[in-house]
Amino acid sequence: MGGALLSLIEDDARFALAGALVSADSRRVGAPAGHHAGLRYDCDWAAVGPLDVVIDFSAPAALPALIEQCLARHAALVTGTTGFDATQEAWLAAAAAHIPVLQAANFSLGIAVLIRLVREAAAALHAWDLEILEAHHARKHDAPSGTALALGAAAAAARGTSLEAAAVYARQGQTGPRGPGSIGFAVIRGGDVVGEHSVQLFAAGERLELVHRATDRLIFARGALEAAYWLAGKPAGRYTLDALLAARAG
Amino acid sequence: MGGALLSLIEDDARFALAGALVSADSRRVGAPAGHHAGLRYDCDWAAVGPLDVVIDFSAPAALPALIEQCLARHAALVTGTTGFDATQEAWLAAAAAHIPVLQAANFSLGIAVLIRLVREAAAALHAWDLEILEAHHARKHDAPSGTALALGAAAAAARGTSLEAAAVYARQGQTGPRGPGSIGFAVIRGGDVVGEHSVQLFAAGERLELVHRATDRLIFARGALEAAYWLAGKPAGRYTLDALLAARAG
Amino acid sequence: MGGALLSLIEDDARFALAGALVSADSRRVGAPAGHHAGLRYDCDWAAVGPLDVVIDFSAPAALPALIEQCLARHAALVTGTTGFDATQEAWLAAAAAHIPVLQAANFSLGIAVLIRLVREAAAALHAWDLEILEAHHARKHDAPSGTALALGAAAAAARGTSLEAAAVYARQGQTGPRGPGSIGFAVIRGGDVVGEHSVQLFAAGERLELVHRATDRLIFARGALEAAYWLAGKPAGRYTLDALLAARAG
Amino acid sequence: MGGALLSLIEDDARFALAGALVSADSRRVGAPAGHHAGLRYDCDWAAVGPLDVVIDFSAPAALPALIEQCLARHAALVTGTTGFDATQEAWLAAAAAHIPVLQAANFSLGIAVLIRLVREAAAALHAWDLEILEAHHARKHDAPSGTALALGAAAAAARGTSLEAAAVYARQGQTGPRGPGSIGFAVIRGGDVVGEHSVQLFAAGERLELVHRATDRLIFARGALEAAYWLAGKPAGRYTLDALLAARAG
Repeated sequence: MGGALLSLIEDDARFALAGALVSADSRRVGAPAGHHAGLRYDCDWAAVGPLDVVIDFSAPAALPALIEQCLARHAALVTGTTGFDATQEAWLAAAAAHIPVLQAANFSLGIAVLIRLVREAAAALHAWDLEILEAHHARKHDAPSGTALALGAAAAAARGTSLEAAAVYARQGQTGPRGPGSIGFAVIRGGDVVGEHSVQLFAAGERLELVHRATDRLIFARGALEAAYWLAGKPAGRYTLDALLAARAG
Repeated sequence: MGGALLSLIEDDARFALAGALVSADSRRVGAPAGHHAGLRYDCDWAAVGPLDVVIDFSAPAALPALIEQCLARHAALVTGTTGFDATQEAWLAAAAAHIPVLQAANFSLGIAVLIRLVREAAAALHAWDLEILEAHHARKHDAPSGTALALGAAAAAARGTSLEAAAVYARQGQTGPRGPGSIGFAVIRGGDVVGEHSVQLFAAGERLELVHRATDRLIFARGALEAAYWLAGKPAGRYTLDALLAARAG
Repeated sequence: MGGALLSLIEDDARFALAGALVSADSRRVGAPAGHHAGLRYDCDWAAVGPLDVVIDFSAPAALPALIEQCLARHAALVTGTTGFDATQEAWLAAAAAHIPVLQAANFSLGIAVLIRLVREAAAALHAWDLEILEAHHARKHDAPSGTALALGAAAAAARGTSLEAAAVYARQGQTGPRGPGSIGFAVIRGGDVVGEHSVQLFAAGERLELVHRATDRLIFARGALEAAYWLAGKPAGRYTLDALLAARAG
Repeated sequence: MGGALLSLIEDDARFALAGALVSADSRRVGAPAGHHAGLRYDCDWAAVGPLDVVIDFSAPAALPALIEQCLARHAALVTGTTGFDATQEAWLAAAAAHIPVLQAANFSLGIAVLIRLVREAAAALHAWDLEILEAHHARKHDAPSGTALALGAAAAAARGTSLEAAAVYARQGQTGPRGPGSIGFAVIRGGDVVGEHSVQLFAAGERLELVHRATDRLIFARGALEAAYWLAGKPAGRYTLDALLAARAG
């Protein structure tokens, strides 16, 4: 993700790179930071110049230094790091009293929009059967994907229920008829598919399909960059990709 | 459409049929109105009992009697008749000062939801390339479909432009690169396809597809019935399918 | 299916109806056989006039009389009845020494073609990951559909393996990476979908999807009729829909 | 394409690189040929060691030297160069009397299989309406794509007609009903889509869709490599990707 961000920033006149940090044991320390003149990967915040916004895809352990630096520099924070525990989440919340913080598990803008649309369609067509299909590459270890589950949770919440109550994860053999209100999941695995998600709503005689297809992992870096550009200079507080989209939609 | 409505009403405990009107020269006059006990098709409003709501799929010429009766009976009016001229539209507007009136060109709830979603996606992802694909049966005489054009107009409006300015209806030969901001249409014709519409938004590395598939013309009758149930008893005014959906979505 | 066949035969100048048989306890006995002048549903072969071909969608118990009559009348036999036991299958085989017999579980010509294409693609792209997705209406009791299993069996056979060895029917939780050579199934249930089957083959950077969508149950009657027209007058023997297609393809 | 081939060969134990030729005015002359130890891009056949097969993606002007070298070295020739004139085609034909030659415009194995399947489906379902949809990136200059036209030509030939006679390239306004036997094209442009082709066949109540999706240009290099491996050591003659597939399908 770091390399992808550097390469996008190079081609985007809205940004100037202030620094590129990796962990102290990374073999990248000292290597050139993309084609950015003079800049090299470092593991020390002292090497980083003045900045407006920090993009973080690292690990929960890096959080204390990260927050300390953002506060000291009055910098906005965009983080795609996952796996924070409750204490770390509380630190983020506390930091958001002083700086703008945007956190997301998936920085694809298309997926963020899809989640909004699914919420709306699930509510407006509350009696329609709702199913979620996802396809990923053959090496993926778990099923359904986290994003498919997030879509299901959004649909369930929009219908006043929960994924726990509504989800049907597999159908095989004598299943009996579909349970009313259930949310079914179907999983495809093959090739090098980056990620496809399809939310399908069925009534008698008609159907709605809301589909997102990712073909390049670069979109996650691109979404983080859009979030960073939007977040820099905002008032302190917690922000989401959804808020970014709502702002854009005017 | 009349027969489809009668058959749906029969199976729906929320409704009781008050009467079934056709034009005076219809060969249906006097025939049984579905299996509704004792009721026969008629051409005279005098044959119609007390009622809460009228569903109209007729012709503009029927409008004066239709409005007169709805006003006299304090009945709500759902109309799917198309082709009203400016004078007739003004009559409808005047009637709406006294009774609730809902007018729509396409009563599929799925299409109504799709239009909302397209508006939202087009605005949130304003820089993404937007294309509209539609498929219909081999006998269809025109292209693109009216619904495809409505989807395109909704997308264009959400982006602050118009279909006239943005639409590209055909691509053949040396087209050159895609014009930024354009909205392309693609048309498929074959078999007995009732109607399929797909709005596709493209960015680098990802794509969103919003698809509606109709497999039974009955959905249009079903949508009109849902509208009628919702409209009956509402305050006077003009209503849309969109408002029905917004109300449902809470 | 009987009603659908009668209605199609009426509109098809290639056919004249010789009789319409139902079981002795059917309430249809004595009712008009569609709009075919003078013909009524009967339960007695004596009521059936001279004929070239019999189309059978009944039950295994009807087989002895069916074969006896076909042999006596030198009539071709098209049967979509399922559930024959080994003895009954042997009777069919014996009959085929004297008359042409075509047996199929699914008379959609589109599905018959799809099976051929899947066989060919699975062999030609033998190292590609192969997955099968099917969607049916919410009332369907079993999963995956019989046709999905038939597609999987065809693909497995084309790769020198069996469905038993290759099939993966559900993926949930920590599945680990996809097993090489496996054939995954995914199931969608909703609305009134007549039947959709999609066979997908994945390699790095590309994918092939072979999809059949049925929107009207009438196609099964239509396929049986095409089979009957083709079979009448053929030499004695066993025939398949596949052979019909091969003959057409020249 | 050269770089992609080098990178694939590196990771494929079936191959050893004998040399990498570019034109004399290329700035790559003298640069390392990927990570292949010691090898550098050259413009002189003298720098190329003994070899079994040559893969050519160059220009027609390079053909005389190319054929001369293949003949002298008894090497098989795989060429994806396009734009040969009649004289150059004749040279290729003459060379094929002495060495195996495989020529193709699109080296995706998936597309090669799709063309076979389309030919078969178009013939078996000769009365079904056939339509071709293609999607490509926003920078593409022409429409429909060459591959879409090749698919259409294959379908037309399988039905005993030609693309010239059957093709309908655009539908807009009052088109009238679909012409029987016509082959319609529909075009989508957006984002960075590498290439998608969908051949759709429609009958009343059912439909067949044969779809290829390319997500990585690397597949063309991969197909050329598979062709090279298969061709090396074959008897002299002209070969096609189709023959490779037929051989695989056993």
